[in-house]
Amino acid sequence: MDVSSYMAELGQTARVAAGKMAAVSSAQKNQALLATAEILESRRDQLAEANQKDLAEGKAKGLEAAMLDRLELTPGRIDTMIEGLKQVAALDDPIGVINDLKYMPSGIQVGKMRVPLGVIGIIYESRPNVTVEAASLCIKSGNATILRGGSEAIHSNQAVAACIAEGLAQAGLPAGAVQVVKTTDRAAVGQLITMPEYVDVIVPRGGKGLIERISRDAKVTVIKHLDGICHVYIDADADREKAIKIALNAKTQRYGTCNTMETLLVHAAVAQEVLPELEALYAEKGVELRACQRSSEILERCVAATEDDWSTEYLAPILSVKVVDDLEQAMAHINAYGSHHTDSIVTENYTTGRRFLTGVDSSSVMINASTRFADGFEYGLGAEIGISTDKIHARGPVGLEGLTSEKYVVLGDGHIRQ
Amino acid sequence: MDVSSYMAELGQTARVAAGKMAAVSSAQKNQALLATAEILESRRDQLAEANQKDLAEGKAKGLEAAMLDRLELTPGRIDTMIEGLKQVAALDDPIGVINDLKYMPSGIQVGKMRVPLGVIGIIYESRPNVTVEAASLCIKSGNATILRGGSEAIHSNQAVAACIAEGLAQAGLPAGAVQVVKTTDRAAVGQLITMPEYVDVIVPRGGKGLIERISRDAKVTVIKHLDGICHVYIDADADREKAIKIALNAKTQRYGTCNTMETLLVHAAVAQEVLPELEALYAEKGVELRACQRSSEILERCVAATEDDWSTEYLAPILSVKVVDDLEQAMAHINAYGSHHTDSIVTENYTTGRRFLTGVDSSSVMINASTRFADGFEYGLGAEIGISTDKIHARGPVGLEGLTSEKYVVLGDGHIRQ
Repeated sequence: MDVSSYMAELGQTARVAAGKMAAVSSAQKNQALLATAEILESRRDQLAEANQKDLAEGKAKGLEAAMLDRLELTPGRIDTMIEGLKQVAALDDPIGVINDLKYMPSGIQVGKMRVPLGVIGIIYESRPNVTVEAASLCIKSGNATILRGGSEAIHSNQAVAACIAEGLAQAGLPAGAVQVVKTTDRAAVGQLITMPEYVDVIVPRGGKGLIERISRDAKVTVIKHLDGICHVYIDADADREKAIKIALNAKTQRYGTCNTMETLLVHAAVAQEVLPELEALYAEKGVELRACQRSSEILERCVAATEDDWSTEYLAPILSVKVVDDLEQAMAHINAYGSHHTDSIVTENYTTGRRFLTGVDSSSVMINASTRFADGFEYGLGAEIGISTDKIHARGPVGLEGLTSEKYVVLGDGHIRQ
Repeated sequence: MDVSSYMAELGQTARVAAGKMAAVSSAQKNQALLATAEILESRRDQLAEANQKDLAEGKAKGLEAAMLDRLELTPGRIDTMIEGLKQVAALDDPIGVINDLKYMPSGIQVGKMRVPLGVIGIIYESRPNVTVEAASLCIKSGNATILRGGSEAIHSNQAVAACIAEGLAQAGLPAGAVQVVKTTDRAAVGQLITMPEYVDVIVPRGGKGLIERISRDAKVTVIKHLDGICHVYIDADADREKAIKIALNAKTQRYGTCNTMETLLVHAAVAQEVLPELEALYAEKGVELRACQRSSEILERCVAATEDDWSTEYLAPILSVKVVDDLEQAMAHINAYGSHHTDSIVTENYTTGRRFLTGVDSSSVMINASTRFADGFEYGLGAEIGISTDKIHARGPVGLEGLTSEKYVVLGDGHIRQ
């Protein structure tokens, strides 16, 4: 197969489908989502069979255990896909909403109508359930999508794609609304991200290396975050109990997520008071501490942090700890070493909290809350296609609205410009 | 001078300034704008002198009359620059506004705070007043900017830049907040658009060729429109008087603007009724008509439109005219040949108007209003840095808000994730 012409064909089909999807009713979109849910339910055996093929090939190729785990479509994960489709169907349709319609001095009314972006390319690895998640958000937001999953999940993804295709057909939506790339040739990715005539936005989900490559080479906007180096800063005026609770939760509730704290900053005035208790709690959970010079004088069991530690996303039971002299030092550290993802301050001081909110340049900035809240569901978006640490188009957790744009609508009564 | 290291230096300086500008008070930003206005007022002679130098060099180089006209800093244009600064100072500060702060089921409060984008690169031609316009919008929105004007305006732009620099200094703002590129070397543009580490967004203003080149080569998001091929569609259910008024205004109020109508579409049922009257009115203004086969049978003086006419932005007293059978044909024509800029329908029919609003994929879609209203001032934005026909980040007239992003703010009371 000629990858280049195959991808261009997918692109053309998607572009045509996008034109139709933009005008489709909420009822039809929801029907497609619910029909797909039913079809998945009725095809559990086929899905498991396709998944077994991927798992067997993966084992034969010597894929590591973590990857095989992500690849597996357990009955529970199929339940989650089905539940996810129902949840997205239940969300309000963002398309067509008109906001801020106001009369202008000239007499015209001007407002903004929410519209789909067009065609969204999604590139992801191993987890076949992403196929359904991503497709459902694109359908609901009236976009067409081209999905490019990992080659290791090709059979699972094609089995899922068949269910979606049937769901679309049942609702009378164009088959081109959701296309899953059939080739495992890596050139397909390079092509997908350099077809601005057919693809409007790329959403990559996967490791930092993949996302960096895509960002560098893409000819369209990429909605992405590279890593989550999140901080909790325990201020001199922190409530001790809140500080302990939040610092523990932000690190240990889950280790492998992008909103997990990787560096704990503590004001010098309270380091002596909070670090020993935290050390004991972290020790219970098996968290290794990598400490700056000053915190190492307080902590009993720790290793010395290197310069690299401050900019490392461990995704593991490891935490770097640094004592700072004041708020300014804490903010300077966060803005310099962080990844502009999510950072939280623990303080009871009004002015300090207010300054932190303004001064920290991250997609989520928090006061007295765990960084683990940075999530589309926790923020009430109802869904999440990813988290953006860029400032263009979408920032922070990206839900349906991040997959849309707005156009101006002007209502007149024969108005002309003077 | 080594252009590459010079531009990198500007970039570094801008990046540092952007960090400071993000935290500056509204009062300080307004002080800088008003101080600059006063300085311009007191330096009219120096500005005229610098401008004379550009004009003389331009003439010597054989620049065409239209370009020399745009280059001239007349007393009236200096007035406009001064007035513009005062207007931008009077606008609400968009930065720091927190919207939609809501309680979530977990108990945290989540909202969005408006923040600057960072560093904005602006590339423009001939008109030196753009230097002040663009700088004022970037200052007000808390961004740093690097301005790259045309080489033919270098003396004027540097004279204006000196006034802005002094205004910034008087308000205690960093000099790096507004930097005007001093070299006329074209390599500076290539460098400016490929420094994502220092520049977050590029706004090009100028001819289509320039903007196409920049879009193709830029490594950051470009806020732009290439051309304005705007349509008015006179529906079968149009009010005759409104139709005539709007079709006349949209074409003849100004010829050289991007929101001027370039193609008139007329429903077959009313073509006979409206076209002869419009022909007479256009003839009075000296507008040449390029007609499709069917409209040429009604119009008395017209030339035959070629396929190219439907996708040409004349920017001149020329109008292409096409008779269509129905709304669907009109919308298909607009979406295929238009530039997704601004399109208007004239109709009294509720359902037809509603379908046009949804079905036309343009940054501004209007009912019973002249396309000439597509403008930041007419839309109540208070200012305009340009018009975007893209769907990413900003669409339609772009005011201060288009130069900003939002970050999530989360307020808790010791909340942790369960």
